[in-house]
Amino acid sequence: MTESPDLNIALVGCGTVGTGVVRILQASQESLRQRTGRSLRLQQVVVRNIGKQRDVDLGTIPVSDDIQTVVDDPQIHVVVHVVGGISPAREDVTRLLQAGKDVITANKALLYAHGAELFALAGRLKRTICFEAAVAGGIPIISAVNTALTGNRIISIEAILNGTSNFILTRMFDRRETYDEVLAEAQARGYAEADPAMDVDGTDAAQKLSILTQLAYGTRVPLEDIVRQGIQQIELLDLLVAAELGYRVKLLATSRLSGERLEVSVQPTLVRANRAIGMTSGADNIISIEGDAVGLMRLSGAGAGQMPTASAVLADVVDYATGRAAITFQSILRLQHQRPVMLQPQEELSRRYYLRFTVADRPHVLADIADILGRHEISISSVRQDETDDVLDESGVARLVIMTHRTTEGRLRTADQEIAALSSVRGDRIRMPIAD
Amino acid sequence: MTESPDLNIALVGCGTVGTGVVRILQASQESLRQRTGRSLRLQQVVVRNIGKQRDVDLGTIPVSDDIQTVVDDPQIHVVVHVVGGISPAREDVTRLLQAGKDVITANKALLYAHGAELFALAGRLKRTICFEAAVAGGIPIISAVNTALTGNRIISIEAILNGTSNFILTRMFDRRETYDEVLAEAQARGYAEADPAMDVDGTDAAQKLSILTQLAYGTRVPLEDIVRQGIQQIELLDLLVAAELGYRVKLLATSRLSGERLEVSVQPTLVRANRAIGMTSGADNIISIEGDAVGLMRLSGAGAGQMPTASAVLADVVDYATGRAAITFQSILRLQHQRPVMLQPQEELSRRYYLRFTVADRPHVLADIADILGRHEISISSVRQDETDDVLDESGVARLVIMTHRTTEGRLRTADQEIAALSSVRGDRIRMPIAD
Repeated sequence: MTESPDLNIALVGCGTVGTGVVRILQASQESLRQRTGRSLRLQQVVVRNIGKQRDVDLGTIPVSDDIQTVVDDPQIHVVVHVVGGISPAREDVTRLLQAGKDVITANKALLYAHGAELFALAGRLKRTICFEAAVAGGIPIISAVNTALTGNRIISIEAILNGTSNFILTRMFDRRETYDEVLAEAQARGYAEADPAMDVDGTDAAQKLSILTQLAYGTRVPLEDIVRQGIQQIELLDLLVAAELGYRVKLLATSRLSGERLEVSVQPTLVRANRAIGMTSGADNIISIEGDAVGLMRLSGAGAGQMPTASAVLADVVDYATGRAAITFQSILRLQHQRPVMLQPQEELSRRYYLRFTVADRPHVLADIADILGRHEISISSVRQDETDDVLDESGVARLVIMTHRTTEGRLRTADQEIAALSSVRGDRIRMPIAD
Repeated sequence: MTESPDLNIALVGCGTVGTGVVRILQASQESLRQRTGRSLRLQQVVVRNIGKQRDVDLGTIPVSDDIQTVVDDPQIHVVVHVVGGISPAREDVTRLLQAGKDVITANKALLYAHGAELFALAGRLKRTICFEAAVAGGIPIISAVNTALTGNRIISIEAILNGTSNFILTRMFDRRETYDEVLAEAQARGYAEADPAMDVDGTDAAQKLSILTQLAYGTRVPLEDIVRQGIQQIELLDLLVAAELGYRVKLLATSRLSGERLEVSVQPTLVRANRAIGMTSGADNIISIEGDAVGLMRLSGAGAGQMPTASAVLADVVDYATGRAAITFQSILRLQHQRPVMLQPQEELSRRYYLRFTVADRPHVLADIADILGRHEISISSVRQDETDDVLDESGVARLVIMTHRTTEGRLRTADQEIAALSSVRGDRIRMPIAD
């Protein structure tokens, strides 16, 4: 199919990303032809609402609201499917593959939930699925893992994979604003969804990390096996205390070999302020990969947004048009049969931690907490309880911050339950690992 | 050739990088076979000195000191050629291509000087040349430009491409040491060559930038068309003054569209300390690319060294083994026919500048220099001449630092010649653009 001079493309979904794809296809006809040796022709567009006004002139390209027109069109080689959510995306992609179409998708939720099933189907049907845009937008991290790093054993992946969370954490710190203030502003500006739950609770980052982990280690990690916390309970105080200690707080997605086991987590994490990850601000994403040969390699840039995501989709279109994508997908399918790295049980993840408690400002509170930590063999490296709390004006309570030496997630969870039961402990309890 | 189950590889050059390549091939047999679906077999090694002790056990692999044994072996599919310098590398690669072998090289000097000729030859003979390791070691920048960014018009490339220079500049600043002290130390530790001229005078970075520029813009830029300065005359004082103003000094390689023209330079440059490039320290490389769709994207990591470079070579081996490399090389050949972006004449490069003069500590010196700048319409934004110079102890001279508003390289060059002729101006005159 890749030998014909014209490549006939259908686009399913003409929202933000789809519009960006159309723009690039229109603007870069000539350079894309030089790259690929083929004419890339957008032949059909499928949208949910035909009547809707669009920011792009589709000219004479037929627009339909029924994907069946694409399924039935034998001229279409490849379908750029840029629709979010699981349904009908799952059914769409299945039907397209079955109809002999290859598929380019940016849908990480779909790949996380049904990637194994769709990849297996594509394998049986000798079809190709491309998904560079599904993780970290315009940053070519899928390509890096699948091609550039193939001579390496991956030691660790540390990444900021959710731009909304990073925007919120950065803005809170830079402007000394509260979580709620920044979130409201981000929503008003369209940076955050009306329902930002998946962004701020770590689900989005965990889905992306799961996809990367599968590619890098051959290990399928369901969300429930990822130590996962969101940023909703992070207070400005936490960011300020972290900064005083030389850290920034980032929603860090980590897959790391610890001996022969894989530790996988998505948690607000204290990262050294002078590391590249610590300095990644705003809605940017960054992926820091350590390979046994290459050492530390970092890729960063816009992890979302119309044109960055469209840029990644176009990389897939070009890869597909030249025939490279089919080869890469065969490699990915072969790797599904490799022996996966075993997961470290969540309780055994071992890190240093930042703990913050809101406590009644009365005697013996610190002693009670320290006693519980000590009984669980959690060693304290520093304590901070300021005499006055001028960040927040709730009276009668104090913020107690404890930094621990290295300990396990399991010990901390158990200790945390006991601490929560203390009558002097109020409200949120924050637990953040420290990445050194 | 890519369909046979075994891939037969010859290695020419078994020095630092070659040894690293052998190590990965030996250690990663199984994972490379899963990636590629083929057995990667190192069948022959060619070295200059057969008797030399090596850090790697070649087992039963035949070792020769004559490349003709590879040329004559019809079993060999691809040759990993990791020998530096132009000769005999140019003749070797030519003979290998003519004998029907594909070539993987890490030799940027060869590609810079004879890439066009070798690519054309490979094109005629339907052969493939891979060269990911030639620029920025383990960082997959060649792949990013050739594949990930294909939906973009590249607006600019800003990069640190020479690790030795960056190591020297970083160490000078961090330890408050002089250029000569740090260079001697770098040589003692093996970071810098015995003859580091190509590293510190910008030649190495300019060759790499030329290769990137050709791929990104289709423009062949010979060294003489690159505004090029080395770091040899940078003094600790320059780094300290820059730091006070919020900058770091980096040997910055830049290709940038200015209107319809391309500005290409390799110069010590003032880069904001809080930008990713400004914070790239030690021997690391970084490439910051701006595409019209993707926005700013950054890749960083080890730009040289045994295993990072071997990692890039292995990425090429895997790409070759799967057949992707041949496709990519065809794209590169097609792009040679695109209309190149025209170069901006060197004199018309327009930037803000940092100027530093060593002057006799006597009246009217500043007035003389300011007068010359003024007559050439170079506007001064700030001046700094400290009363005492406690950084250097030469008596009777002072360091005068002038920051200009935006002006052209041509005006500054002319003014600089006049300033040089002033009897009060002594020794080196430093001119560094400011990247904002």
